[in-house]
Amino acid sequence: MTLKPWKTLARAKVLDYGKWLVIEKHTIELPDGRIIDDWPWVISPDYINVIAVTEDRRFMLFRQVKYCTDETSLAPVGGYLDPNENALDAAKRELFEETGYEAADWISLGQYCVDGNRGAGTAYLFLAQGAHQVAEPDADDLEEQELLFLDQAEVEQALLGGEFKVLSWATTVALALRVLDKAR
Amino acid sequence: MTLKPWKTLARAKVLDYGKWLVIEKHTIELPDGRIIDDWPWVISPDYINVIAVTEDRRFMLFRQVKYCTDETSLAPVGGYLDPNENALDAAKRELFEETGYEAADWISLGQYCVDGNRGAGTAYLFLAQGAHQVAEPDADDLEEQELLFLDQAEVEQALLGGEFKVLSWATTVALALRVLDKAR
Repeated sequence: MTLKPWKTLARAKVLDYGKWLVIEKHTIELPDGRIIDDWPWVISPDYINVIAVTEDRRFMLFRQVKYCTDETSLAPVGGYLDPNENALDAAKRELFEETGYEAADWISLGQYCVDGNRGAGTAYLFLAQGAHQVAEPDADDLEEQELLFLDQAEVEQALLGGEFKVLSWATTVALALRVLDKAR
Repeated sequence: MTLKPWKTLARAKVLDYGKWLVIEKHTIELPDGRIIDDWPWVISPDYINVIAVTEDRRFMLFRQVKYCTDETSLAPVGGYLDPNENALDAAKRELFEETGYEAADWISLGQYCVDGNRGAGTAYLFLAQGAHQVAEPDADDLEEQELLFLDQAEVEQALLGGEFKVLSWATTVALALRVLDKAR
């Protein structure tokens, strides 16, 4: 079975919040020839998440509040790519800014469309091992957050207990644990 | 350390694609008292993804193309909640419509904000075991897709090989594998 991609026949900007959010309307041709002339498409910045594990095998996570939920959540390091910034460079920069740590070993956990239908950018996920402190944190994030050091059993329990409340955070943790399990 | 939620002081609709996408502009008060008066907020439908495993332990997955990527991807069952529909009901409905299967055992893999900053709906993820065919599939999805039956080793290899190209699909697979590992 040959699966054909959808064709974009035309695109027009319908809303512009600059680098944070642009909405386009696309005209699309499906593989069977049907035309859809009002397909909304979301352009938001690509971002990274990083599960950082210290040299003594502690997982660096934040307790923080995000606007999407009134509840406190556990969260990995994360942030948007700067314009023209490489994803791995962004991951190293965010780890350093948010925690003051650097890490010796970086493993990609993949790159993913955030919304299969609408786009909404690409999430680049990483596992960083051998993290060690080299400076004080210097984040300019809007959120209040508290840095925690958890062991692997605590992270596993938190993951299946629903304590990571944002999709990409759960993805990053679940994938990191798989890679670590495989390596044992 | 007490973490306070952000307060929404005002909201206004700035773009309306009906049930598929609404964009609002929010005025927000941060915990430190700062005001942000142009925070974009994305309202898109909540959705479900289901990893279905048959009675003989085969994972039901699709090979399909999504608009966000020109590449073919592996994908679990998925779809939007109908208005006022319960997430588990939507998951059972989508499994039935897309495959003609029902499943005996349903486990929630959690619910997640799709975008911690912008909203973009909630993803409800499920593992369904004991799936068995009761009818022919009757999906009205726009995508061409091919149903595959993979064993667990093939699914694990595909996950870490980046063959699930949409964020919530990788999340669902990674969480399902963790739950299945724990149960062994």
